[in-house]
Amino acid sequence: MVVKGIRFALSFFFFALLLIFDTSAGHGGKIQARIPCKHLVFYFHDVIYNGANAKNATSAIVGAPAWGNMTILAGQSHFGDLVVFDDPITLDNNLHSTPVGRAQGFYIYDRKEIFTAWLGFSFVFNSTEHKGSINFAGADPLMNETRDVSVIGGTGDFFMARGVATLMTDAFEGEVYFRLRTDIKLYECW
Amino acid sequence: MVVKGIRFALSFFFFALLLIFDTSAGHGGKIQARIPCKHLVFYFHDVIYNGANAKNATSAIVGAPAWGNMTILAGQSHFGDLVVFDDPITLDNNLHSTPVGRAQGFYIYDRKEIFTAWLGFSFVFNSTEHKGSINFAGADPLMNETRDVSVIGGTGDFFMARGVATLMTDAFEGEVYFRLRTDIKLYECW
Amino acid sequence: MVVKGIRFALSFFFFALLLIFDTSAGHGGKIQARIPCKHLVFYFHDVIYNGANAKNATSAIVGAPAWGNMTILAGQSHFGDLVVFDDPITLDNNLHSTPVGRAQGFYIYDRKEIFTAWLGFSFVFNSTEHKGSINFAGADPLMNETRDVSVIGGTGDFFMARGVATLMTDAFEGEVYFRLRTDIKLYECW
Repeated sequence: MVVKGIRFALSFFFFALLLIFDTSAGHGGKIQARIPCKHLVFYFHDVIYNGANAKNATSAIVGAPAWGNMTILAGQSHFGDLVVFDDPITLDNNLHSTPVGRAQGFYIYDRKEIFTAWLGFSFVFNSTEHKGSINFAGADPLMNETRDVSVIGGTGDFFMARGVATLMTDAFEGEVYFRLRTDIKLYECW
Repeated sequence: MVVKGIRFALSFFFFALLLIFDTSAGHGGKIQARIPCKHLVFYFHDVIYNGANAKNATSAIVGAPAWGNMTILAGQSHFGDLVVFDDPITLDNNLHSTPVGRAQGFYIYDRKEIFTAWLGFSFVFNSTEHKGSINFAGADPLMNETRDVSVIGGTGDFFMARGVATLMTDAFEGEVYFRLRTDIKLYECW
Repeated sequence: MVVKGIRFALSFFFFALLLIFDTSAGHGGKIQARIPCKHLVFYFHDVIYNGANAKNATSAIVGAPAWGNMTILAGQSHFGDLVVFDDPITLDNNLHSTPVGRAQGFYIYDRKEIFTAWLGFSFVFNSTEHKGSINFAGADPLMNETRDVSVIGGTGDFFMARGVATLMTDAFEGEVYFRLRTDIKLYECW
């Protein structure tokens, strides 16, 4: 009777141990639950400098191909244009809402045939709500309704964060203003 | 007898638990097997715009130092040249093979004395084989036979991937064409 | 008596298992001790090309907004200036100490109202002490006494590293020379 109880207990432990190895193994040794540990949604607003809007512009062309210049986005899907930005982040889709942080970094249009860009940027927060930064990198095929980029790290409240951010063009007005909805799902939180 | 059995079982469990802690500890708490969970090899092909090859070019100079311009790579080991690219990815080393994806991003030549660059780019896949992206960043001392850059994230099939990619210059023709073999080893797969 | 012993042993194991789950869970499945597995401090030295210091310069402006150029940092907090660098890394704050590696990459001044930049760079080591690279990305609000950027990956001795690097401006001389103290804390070591 006692021995049987022990056997049952032992099998339970074997099972438990297997479970641990199973969820944490995946060849690379990571527990692989695809459940976000943090989920945040923000909007950011980009007003590109066009030679006439210095006061309101939040971004500027600073690199361009041989056929381009710094005040007009180049032909061929803006291929080669490098844009630096410091855009306000808001909680809703209103450009005039109180910013809760700044989206800072760059994008480069990187294809001739279609609008697509490569992004390196950070969300920088310094409010009672959030302090710290979230760092992003990845391809942005901006004609797709949604695009995923990587959360490659974070600091402060977002210390060591990793995850995926889904970008969605929420508004696009000519070649001067666009607004991106950013749905951030962190899968590694410390 | 029963007690002895229990003691044996207990020591086994202690051992098993120790094993778990041991492989997962490493000061930072990560299971540290250096066995890739995914291994992929691709080639990508870069044809730099030189003022005369607009049709075939897959990349263009978009930033240059004071002594440079946008159609000729600058002197002093191209120091300061920023190149944006959208290069076809193939499974073998033939430029004319059917592309399986696009390598998109930028490199900056960053040293006067020797050819070396800094890379930020993505492999973007949208085929039956692979959907999603792999994001890379790192130094590329391109005169070395092989160079390692970091896989800093991924999306889709490569959700949350991390690893190391070994670059090898597979061909180099003047200053217009080069081909890189990219040996990707992922150590974190979700 | 035996049964009581078993019960005690079982509760111990439950407790141990709970401990494992607890330290490794955190919604995303990472052991979350905030104790660095590696701690390194370095200095790097940046001498910006200004048209007259070609011999000593370690960095150069290679992108600038419409109102800027490649030899003078632009007005409006240098907003839009893209700088490529290949800076010596030293163990102490003396520019003339023997370099132990090179800091290579770029920064972009990204705000009109205040000095702030976005950084993508690597520390590249090839000495008896260290071989390999550490890759960094993040926002650098450089008027703050300290700023945190992310360690997004590493190779060689720093294989798969992740962590946080704290930057501190250790010296700043006009617009030609600055020195950054870089306090690197890795929390994931393989």
